[in-house]
This record gives sequence, C-alpha cells and structure tokens, in this order.
Amino acid sequence: MSTISIGEYILNRIKELCIDTVFGVPGDFNMPLLDLIDYDSELVWCSSANELNASYAADGYSRVRGISALVTSFGLGELSSMNGLAGSYSEMVPVIHIVGTPRTIVSDSSVTQSHAVGNGDYDIFYKMSSMISAASTNVTLVDAIEEIDRVIQTAVINKRPGYIGIPINLIHARVEVPKIIPLQLSSPKNPEELQSVALKQILKEIKAAKYPIVIVGGCILRHGLEIEVNKFVERSGFPTFSAPMGKGSVNTELANYRGIYCCDEVSLSGIEAEIQKADLLIEIGSIKADFNTGHFSFGPERTKTISLNSRITIIYHAEYPGVGMHELLPLVTASLPTEKAQFEYSPRIRPNPIDASMNEITHNYLWNKVPEYVGPNNIIVGEIGSSEIALFNMECPKNTIFISQILWVSTGYSVSAAVGAAMADRSRKVYLFVSNDAFLVTAQEIEVFIRQGLTPVICLLKNNNYRTEKLVHGPYCMYNNFKMWEYSRSLNFSGGNTNENKATGRKHAIVGIEAKVNTPQEFESAMKKITQQTDKIHFLEIVMPRTEDSCDSSLITDP
Amino acid sequence: MSTISIGEYILNRIKELCIDTVFGVPGDFNMPLLDLIDYDSELVWCSSANELNASYAADGYSRVRGISALVTSFGLGELSSMNGLAGSYSEMVPVIHIVGTPRTIVSDSSVTQSHAVGNGDYDIFYKMSSMISAASTNVTLVDAIEEIDRVIQTAVINKRPGYIGIPINLIHARVEVPKIIPLQLSSPKNPEELQSVALKQILKEIKAAKYPIVIVGGCILRHGLEIEVNKFVERSGFPTFSAPMGKGSVNTELANYRGIYCCDEVSLSGIEAEIQKADLLIEIGSIKADFNTGHFSFGPERTKTISLNSRITIIYHAEYPGVGMHELLPLVTASLPTEKAQFEYSPRIRPNPIDASMNEITHNYLWNKVPEYVGPNNIIVGEIGSSEIALFNMECPKNTIFISQILWVSTGYSVSAAVGAAMADRSRKVYLFVSNDAFLVTAQEIEVFIRQGLTPVICLLKNNNYRTEKLVHGPYCMYNNFKMWEYSRSLNFSGGNTNENKATGRKHAIVGIEAKVNTPQEFESAMKKITQQTDKIHFLEIVMPRTEDSCDSSLITDP
Repeated sequence: MSTISIGEYILNRIKELCIDTVFGVPGDFNMPLLDLIDYDSELVWCSSANELNASYAADGYSRVRGISALVTSFGLGELSSMNGLAGSYSEMVPVIHIVGTPRTIVSDSSVTQSHAVGNGDYDIFYKMSSMISAASTNVTLVDAIEEIDRVIQTAVINKRPGYIGIPINLIHARVEVPKIIPLQLSSPKNPEELQSVALKQILKEIKAAKYPIVIVGGCILRHGLEIEVNKFVERSGFPTFSAPMGKGSVNTELANYRGIYCCDEVSLSGIEAEIQKADLLIEIGSIKADFNTGHFSFGPERTKTISLNSRITIIYHAEYPGVGMHELLPLVTASLPTEKAQFEYSPRIRPNPIDASMNEITHNYLWNKVPEYVGPNNIIVGEIGSSEIALFNMECPKNTIFISQILWVSTGYSVSAAVGAAMADRSRKVYLFVSNDAFLVTAQEIEVFIRQGLTPVICLLKNNNYRTEKLVHGPYCMYNNFKMWEYSRSLNFSGGNTNENKATGRKHAIVGIEAKVNTPQEFESAMKKITQQTDKIHFLEIVMPRTEDSCDSSLITDP
Repeated sequence: MSTISIGEYILNRIKELCIDTVFGVPGDFNMPLLDLIDYDSELVWCSSANELNASYAADGYSRVRGISALVTSFGLGELSSMNGLAGSYSEMVPVIHIVGTPRTIVSDSSVTQSHAVGNGDYDIFYKMSSMISAASTNVTLVDAIEEIDRVIQTAVINKRPGYIGIPINLIHARVEVPKIIPLQLSSPKNPEELQSVALKQILKEIKAAKYPIVIVGGCILRHGLEIEVNKFVERSGFPTFSAPMGKGSVNTELANYRGIYCCDEVSLSGIEAEIQKADLLIEIGSIKADFNTGHFSFGPERTKTISLNSRITIIYHAEYPGVGMHELLPLVTASLPTEKAQFEYSPRIRPNPIDASMNEITHNYLWNKVPEYVGPNNIIVGEIGSSEIALFNMECPKNTIFISQILWVSTGYSVSAAVGAAMADRSRKVYLFVSNDAFLVTAQEIEVFIRQGLTPVICLLKNNNYRTEKLVHGPYCMYNNFKMWEYSRSLNFSGGNTNENKATGRKHAIVGIEAKVNTPQEFESAMKKITQQTDKIHFLEIVMPRTEDSCDSSLITDP
C-alpha cells in the first residue's frame, strides 16, 4: 500500500471535483495546509479580508462551478464563516469547508488554548457547523480517508456544505491508502416501480389539463439539469416561468418562455394573471421559500400542483419519495405527445420602457439600459434588495449566469460572491450591482479583485442609506442612516493605483474607469468607455434619486 | 397590575444596567425594537456595517462599562455575530444579545421563510448561540418577564453573553407586570465555614512563604475588584505582576508592582527569573489560557500556587468551591500582618530604551514613544499580534484602560472594539493601534467613528501584510500577502470630508490629522499636532520596517 499525507489527500479530492481555487483566510491552525496549496501548481489560493467574505466568495464560485472549497481556522475563523455557510446550506450550494483545528494532544486535555471558549469543550464549533452541513467530520489518523470521502460525496450529492475538521498536526501525517477509487457523486437511482406509477400519473394529469403552466426553480441550476429542463419546456410548449432562483435556467429565446414569476408586487404586472389561469402547475426543481415562491401563493395549492424535485416527486397530495427529477424528467419529456400544445397568450410581458423625460438614473432607466452593455455569456451578480428585484425582471443577454442570494438574503453577499464567480470562470465578464448599504458589509473585497487580476465591472448604486430596509420599515428613522463614503475612490483606496502594489505580484488588475455618474448621459458615456477596456477593472458610483427626500437624518432628533 | 410592551421591558432593564448605547445592525426582524430605541432619549443606537463588527463594538463597550447590549436579526445577523460573541464568552465579557426572530405563527409552521435554512428547524440558531451563552431564551407571551430577567441576571453574574430571542410580533405585545423589583446582580454569598477554613490556610501559607509573588488576572477587571486587589497588593508588599489580561488592574505606581508576566518570549527579559524565585504564587482572578499564563508555565505548578477566583478558591491541590474572591480577598487583606513585608529586588524592569541611531519607526521606538503623548485616564486599544505584545510591556499612563483580545485572539477585533470603548466613555480619549492586516477585517467602522462624532487617535501600523502570521508560519508564502491600501486616506474615503455628510446629523466628527509617517521625526511632529486638536478624529499610517525584506510576493512563483 502507498502512503499519502492527509492534507495532500484532501487537495487531490478537491482537484478531482475540478476545483482550481481555494478560498479562505490564513489562520494559526491551517497554515500547513496553505503551504501545500501554495506549492500546488493546479490550485490558486484566494484569501479574503475575513471569513464571512471568504464564505460568500466560495458560495459564488460554487454557483458557477458546481462546487467549491473554503479553508478557515478553528474557532473564530469558522464562526465568522457561519452566516455565509448557512446561506449556502439554505440555497443548496455545496461548499467543502476545511477547518484547521488544534493539535490532537491539546484538544484532548482540559487546558484552555487560545481561540477556544475556555469551558474545556473543543467540539462546540464542530457541533454548530454540523447543524448547517450535509455531513461533517473531525478526521483522525484512523479514519481520515473514509471520512473525507464520505463528507465530500454527501455534500456534492445533497448540494449542501460539508465540514472537514483536521488537526494541524495531522495535515502532514501520512496514512496508507488503498487503490484510489473515484468519488461517487451521482444521485441514487430512483425506485423503478414507484417511478413508473408517478410517470403514468403525471402524463394523465398533463393530458387532462387545459392550461398547464411550468415554473422552473433553482434546483435545476444546482443539479445541472438545464438541458433536460429546456428539452421538456420546448417539447411541451407549455407556458413556462422561472422562479427568481431559477433565473438563467430556461432559454429565454424559447417561444413559450414567459418571464419570472414571484409574488405580485415583484413580478411584472400581468404575470400573476397568467399564473392564475393555470389549471395545472408543474414545478420543477423548486427551492421553497417565502420570497422565491411568491409568499407561498402557489406552493400550498397542492390540489393543482405537480412538483418534481431532486429526491421526491409530489402529485397533488401524493408523495413519491426517492423519485428524483434527474431520471424522471427525461422520461416525462420522452412520453409527451409529439404534437406540441398550442396556447394563446398575449405578447411576452416586458419591463416598462425607459421614460426618456427623466434626467435621473432611475431603476426603470438602469435595468432597461444595462442589457445594452452586457454581452452574452457573462455573469451578473445582484445584491439583495431593490437591485435584485429589478434584476429578476431584467432581460438578460443569452447564456447569462445570474447570481443573487434570494432565499437567505444576507446583505453584502454580492461583492464577495462576485469575487468567487470571477475566479470560477475568467472567460466570462462579471457585472456586479451592489447598493451602498450592502457595500459596507464586504467592501474589503475590492482589494481581492485587484490582487487576483480580476476585471469586473462594479456598479455601486448610491440610493439612500439602507434603502431596502427603509422600504420595509422606518423610512424616517435614524437607524436606517449612515454616512456616505467616497465610493468612487474605492479602487484607488484599495490599492489599485498604488505603485508598491504594481511592483509585486504579476496579477495586479489595471484600473480602468473609476467614476461617479449622476445622469443617464454620464452613465452611458462611462459604459461606452468600459466596453472598450475589457482587460481592466471598473467601478461606477451610480447616483440614484432618493426615494424619500425628506428622510434626512438632519430632520430626525439626534438621540 | 400594569402592562408594558415586551420591547419596552427589555429596554428598561438594559437602562437599569446603566447601558446608554445599543449596538447592532438593522434587520428584517428587529426594526420595531429599533423604533423604540430611536424614540428613547436615554439610548443611542450605534449600528455597525455588519454584525461581526457590531459584536466587537459591544464587547469593547462592555469592557469599559461592565455590560453592553447588542441587537441582531434572526439567522444571518445573529450568525455573523457568533465569532465576536464567542470571544466575549471566552474572555468573560457580558453582552446582552437581543435577536429579533420571525413571527411566532411562522416559526410554528413548516413553510420556509427567508433567512431560515430551509430544513424546517427554526431553533438551530438559538441552539448554536446557547453554546456560547451563560443563559438563553426565546421569549413567549407567557414567560417574557421572568425569562428576560433570568438571562440578564445570569449573564451579568457569570460575565458571559446572554441570548434573548424575541419574535417580531411580540416586541409591541403588552404583558402584565407585577411590581417591578430591581435585577438581582450580586454574586452568591460564600459558604461561611468553608471560607474561614480557606482563609486560615491562606494566611498560614503566606506566613510560611519566603518569597511570595502575586499575579493579577483579567477577572479582577471583569468583576470590578480593582480597589480590593490594590489594597491587598499595597498592604502585602509582595512583588506583584499583572497577567496580560489583567493589565490596568494594578496601580503601576505601587512600589512593589513589577510589570507584566507572560511567557519568556513576551515578558521583558528578567521577569521570568523573578517569577522562578517565588516559593508561593498567589493568582488572583486569573483567566486561564495558553497565552495569558505563559503557555501553562505557572498554572500547573499547583504545589506552590494559591488561586483566588470568582467562584472557587484553590490552595495547592485543595479546592474550596463557592468561595469567591469578592468576599475572601478583603478578608485576607485585613488579616495580613500590619508590618509590610520587605523584599529586595533590582529596579523595576523597563522596556529597552530607544535606539536613537535608527531612522525608522521600529517597535522599540514606537512603544517607548507613545506614552509621551497619551495622557492619563485614557483608553488604549491594541490589536492582537505584534502591537498587542508590545503594548503589554508599554509603560501605561496612570489609570489607562487597556483593551485587547488576548485569549480569543480574533484579528480585526480592535477597530470595532475601539468604537465600543469610545461610546462607553466620551470623557476618555481612545488610542487605537491596529496593524494593516487586522484593519482589513473591520475597516468599515471608521465611518462609525465619524457618524457618532467620536474623536479617537487611530494609528495603523503598516508593517508587512500578515506580519504576525508570518512570524508564526510561512514568511515567504503567497498566502500571507495582500495588496496595500491607501490607508492614510481612510477618514476621507469613509466620508469624513464629504460635504453631504456634514450637512446631515449633528454628530459628524471633524477630521484632524490624516497622514502617513515614515520616520520618528514625522511621527513626533504629527503627534504634537494631534495632541493640540483633541476635539477631532485623527488617523496616522505608520510605516514600519518590514521584518523580512526578501519576502516580496514578486519573488514567489505566482500560482
């Protein structure tokens, strides 16, 4: 039997998943693993300013590549990544989380070590992470190989984070390995009899339906079933909508694609009425959530809903556990009548056209105008809140990857997620739309773009402090206000033009346009220059009208 | 019986603890509580860019005031604060953590709500927080009053965080209150008989000892026992050291105060030898940790150690549970011989004097020079790592409050902790010393200083990327490098000079000195100006020599 160090074994498995970038932050207990990454020509280390940011970056990478890896350190590091990983868990984004932990000899004793909470329990962080992981382990010399494989496989198959704790003294420890077999990453086979019953039932209901409607959800993207779902949509001819989390999964050039369906306030007007006409709803790959499914407006209507999911099929009130869409959906498609169903509907609903009389950069203007500058095959990352909602309905260029955290809704996610997305595919241009309030949370990542030589177009929407929160509650309250930064200096402040930075490291991104734009003319002029400088990083501070002009903190009694 | 809303009840209890500032971040589930804070003339709302930063700020405030309050929102918000609160737990800093949670009706159903992880379990964040809290509760209409009191009292008495989850729809819900009785915050009484046995034994051992030494730890600060401990130190005449976490607890003007004792590499040379001479060690209020107690060098020597703690007294191998130092220590002091013990020792060990031949700002120079500009009664906040270690040994001006996270050691803590400390006592000037790597983590808080009209002196030490990590491991590795920011523009970038900011809100801090200094002359010139402008906020980027000049990322193969 040959031997391998546990650290190398983890990295080999990571590379087997086609991961080429590892995210994280250096810490006392993980640096020997970072040494291995540093020396590995197939891996890039992409550190963030803190572990929250790193976890968002890993999430963004995983949404493009299907999987990612994050390295943190025992205690403080892993805890700072908890919010990001809980988001990955809730939105079904697999991330392999590798945590360097104290030497085995220390954690067996009861002496307090730095970064431990001082009650003698070294397992509490592991316990916390286990609650938001598909699988978790603290590897030992005896079980390292099996446990690493188990956690990775479970995470990939279930599309959730997996936690691997590794004591610092075991990173270089060598273990015997049997003949290496590839990771087993495929979903379990559907039970045949149950599947054939479900298939028959679905075809019967489809045949009986007068106005069936298809709603495609985010799990299609997670499970990489875009081809299968588009075959079904095309072949069936049924009017088809994306849920917000499914945006990007359906070919928008198909004649029966109808747009994004969320709840009435957010979908374009007229969409809700079309949905209401349906006598059969076929949900495919839905990730249930209050926001993603229109405040539960169609989810609970089980008497007319067929739901195809990764591990279960539900037809009205009947459940078919274990019958997953990856096998069932192609069977349904193949069994559809060869003659395509014909439906009459009005022309596809589009966003309201630009009101040319406005000399301000309104949301209406911006989301109509942006597609003119974003070519096909790129990545759009949208922050939660107003820009995200607008982005749902934006007409995306062909083959756009759309990234937003729609279910977990953690402010600030977009900046770091854009770092991850940009690292995941350098052939695609990343367009980031982030509001000024969200930018506060993760602004440090601008330096990471520069350090990694990434060339995104960053659009910061300067609207009005916590604009989204103000729309929810307290528009005139002090707590929704803060001081404005000099956002348009972000690239410069983060070292983009600093000589000593350019001198060291080959990857330094070159600063292109860094400007503040107040009017449509200024925006368009800047975007034209940006499209001519594709090899540079750009930052636009886009000044938008305040929604409540009287909402100045000066009008509020200072506490 | 009168009634009160649950939200108001919480705020009343908070104010009873002499809290005047509430830290946190606005979120979907906490805003009705923020309304109440906004309208309360006795409370200031101090929001941070994110919950990690807010939790550090609350920790910093608590170290000055003895207690603090933090408001976050269900799921993402509370998770982002987890690292900071775990630090508070481990360093025994009480923080009342109030979390706005979903409406009771939602969390009882199994529908997925935004910010939930989507597995139907709404309790997992509560379970996580419970692991790092002295007490925790999710209040209901039935038990709100008792539970809020229980959590606050337990947190204060145990010097640990307490978690109060409150469903958003219960914030304004009114409950009946009996006659309000004040919170019960005093430690339990010592068992009398056990205490008298312990006292007798301690006095016997002191009498027998030839060279007893006192080491004062951080719990003295947490329990506010500075007066009691200084009486003991003065009356006994025993050579006395502070543990790093106890810095600031002993009056350094006492003749028998000898300095800071940590481990050999960190204490000033000669200190270790003095400690080794002791035939009796009297630890008072020690918070055990690898770093705080010299890598376990004196902790385990139980055959010559008497340990007085908040809830237990340990004499060699004998434990006296329940015998707390708050009652026992004054009894020991009162029973000491009236004639002060006389010990001969060399003059107090001081840091090496400045090497005047250097034209660079070295650590030796800086920590000798700083005390000349920091007057008495101020607050020094030091980041972990090299500056913290140097700060241990720095000669502090009289009555300095010294804040550093010595046990939990979370990089970036100091910036936000300085916000909290500054809010806690505006009569004291805050001096913040932060390294460039740590600044990355929490840099957003510069805006909070400005927004709250705070006037700290911020000294950023530009040394060498992750300098402390490099000293630990991998000085020539890529992963310990990042791009340098334009640090000396921080106040400007964060809106300190932005006209629209000055126009709104009374509290805007005025920018004083914002500069980059490269030499001792430049540093001293800047500090002179700073001391003349006490009503302004200042930021110095202090360029220090790199420890490993060959450690350029340009020399490393880019991965």
